[in-house]
Amino acid sequence: MELDAWHMRRALSLAALGKGAVEPNPMVGCVIARGAEIIGEGWHRAYGQPHAEVEALRMAGDRAAGATMYVTLEPCCHFGKTPPCTDAIIRAGIRRVVAAMADPFSLVHGQGIARLREAGIEVVVGLMEQEARRLNAPYLKLLSTQRPWVIAKWAMTVDGKIATATGESRWISGEESRRKVHALRGRVDGIAVGIGTVETDDPLLTARPPGPRIAVRIVLDSRARLSPHSRLVQTAREFPVLVAVSAQADGEARRKLEAAGCEVLECPGKTRSERLQALLDELGRRRMTNVLFEGGSQVLGELFDHQLVDEVHVFVAPKIVGGQNGRTPVAGRGVTKMAEALHLSNVTWERVGDDLYLHGYISRSASDINHLAGTTD
Amino acid sequence: MELDAWHMRRALSLAALGKGAVEPNPMVGCVIARGAEIIGEGWHRAYGQPHAEVEALRMAGDRAAGATMYVTLEPCCHFGKTPPCTDAIIRAGIRRVVAAMADPFSLVHGQGIARLREAGIEVVVGLMEQEARRLNAPYLKLLSTQRPWVIAKWAMTVDGKIATATGESRWISGEESRRKVHALRGRVDGIAVGIGTVETDDPLLTARPPGPRIAVRIVLDSRARLSPHSRLVQTAREFPVLVAVSAQADGEARRKLEAAGCEVLECPGKTRSERLQALLDELGRRRMTNVLFEGGSQVLGELFDHQLVDEVHVFVAPKIVGGQNGRTPVAGRGVTKMAEALHLSNVTWERVGDDLYLHGYISRSASDINHLAGTTD
Repeated sequence: MELDAWHMRRALSLAALGKGAVEPNPMVGCVIARGAEIIGEGWHRAYGQPHAEVEALRMAGDRAAGATMYVTLEPCCHFGKTPPCTDAIIRAGIRRVVAAMADPFSLVHGQGIARLREAGIEVVVGLMEQEARRLNAPYLKLLSTQRPWVIAKWAMTVDGKIATATGESRWISGEESRRKVHALRGRVDGIAVGIGTVETDDPLLTARPPGPRIAVRIVLDSRARLSPHSRLVQTAREFPVLVAVSAQADGEARRKLEAAGCEVLECPGKTRSERLQALLDELGRRRMTNVLFEGGSQVLGELFDHQLVDEVHVFVAPKIVGGQNGRTPVAGRGVTKMAEALHLSNVTWERVGDDLYLHGYISRSASDINHLAGTTD
Repeated sequence: MELDAWHMRRALSLAALGKGAVEPNPMVGCVIARGAEIIGEGWHRAYGQPHAEVEALRMAGDRAAGATMYVTLEPCCHFGKTPPCTDAIIRAGIRRVVAAMADPFSLVHGQGIARLREAGIEVVVGLMEQEARRLNAPYLKLLSTQRPWVIAKWAMTVDGKIATATGESRWISGEESRRKVHALRGRVDGIAVGIGTVETDDPLLTARPPGPRIAVRIVLDSRARLSPHSRLVQTAREFPVLVAVSAQADGEARRKLEAAGCEVLECPGKTRSERLQALLDELGRRRMTNVLFEGGSQVLGELFDHQLVDEVHVFVAPKIVGGQNGRTPVAGRGVTKMAEALHLSNVTWERVGDDLYLHGYISRSASDINHLAGTTD
């Protein structure tokens, strides 16, 4: 069994290599082994490319017959962009399949496992399932809630400020931290900010250097205030810009933005929160798997107030700006009792240059993922 | 030379064992060695107790003759609480003395070194001087500025809050972090908070369990608003309480506090900052070496605005409270440009339970210490 875990850990590492390139597909890694010897391995490298199982089978060749396959997700049994993996596995003579988890995707959903078992293959499901679920939490969330995985990111000083009293925020974090942010931007489907942040910082919100995918740049701008002179609008024909407005937004302003190459999306709802949730629904319909929210504090406050955040990336810079009016990363209504604070789980801290980089999940989301486990097993 | 550094490092570690027990004396560690072999070692254990050199000489006994002594500070040559170390060193026949730094204290100040050299002992000064200066930075500051070393401490959430919107702050950090705070309290001479913090939290401000010294609990309370029913006043006869008031404070309120066992200190000055600086002057006159400021954000803001902080301890808890009105750790005027932010130097990050514990120095102070180096060499 230790050997099984060893191979599955390898398969999970391989799977993660597809991060940012495979969405809205899940990340999948696969190892084919005879005892301790790995005779084939692969991962799903990019959307539309071969599945992990097929890559590993290709590498194993004839030696696959009688071997064990370790795969981080139930093999598919349907024709999607590529032919069903189950057929290839059966044809290759694999004797035993160890899958970390079943695939809740409706076209698979246990049928891949059933097909393998019918063919006389021994199938074990659930080895390192928690790790596999965490890896593909965004995929699982989109499948189960039809909304993208929401990532909140901010950089703050060690006295909890995201800007000085006058609103200056460049730069809080160091160069290495900003490189991390660009890497994050390069693997998500959407990067969202509030109109206030655009007006203060005039950000470009692109990944520099580019990553495996190009995000839609999203501005929460109920009144369509976004300036045609902003860097976002100026580059809208190169990299997509979506302006999320309310029904109250001025028609002329909307038309100008559209003429400049932006998409203007009217989000229904009377409150900011209703419109924000409508936006998430729409992004989910577009099969966006990960959306990164970079601020400002009003937008992040709204997201946290309504428990819409799944994952948090925070950069803490060892400097102090002080100020009664210095801006704080998360505003909104907030909780009233300390005991109601949202706890991060699976927290990692890492030193990045002079800064500290914290990464964690919102505990609620973790329990949601565990809950998903209950519904799909 | 590597051997010298090796022994000096050991002497520095020994010196640090006296932290909290020796002040207002400096921490001193001493190693006596013949080549690689340590034949004696010691440290200044507590105020009034033998000096490090004497301890190490006692342990070395007759073998000290012809040996090398490594000591983190120039040996004293005056009668203080104990007889001069220089005489003991000469008597023991030590052949070579390596000191990390000269002692700027007026009664020593190079004369200890001179005395040893007169006796024919080879003296080297300045090995690992920077480490030695950092170790005794509070002692050096008190000597050169007549003011105590100011330590600022706060605990905040990862979204930069020290309390929820309603002011609740218990508990932000975890148990292990709070243990660290109590250890810190147990080694300082004063623990100061603003009256606002007393009114919100009603803190006891004692070290639990007690440390090597008992701090004076200080309340910045210009109008003498401190309630006789507060836990501070209620315990004033067990552990000292100093209430720093302005000339405007009500006489009756002052008398009541005095009657309850508090010391009431009128600090001259028209502004908060003038009174704060007058207080620091007075604490310096009382030879307090370290004073810990635990908040609130107004007091810390005032301190940072006037560059009065030397050292910072921050606990970051992986939780989010949000809130437009959630309190931030450092208020005050703050800096307007990000480039003017105070940088921490020699920063260490450490995981403490679920929290992250940051420790650093204000860069300005570090340069002050280097500046002190210039004046005493």
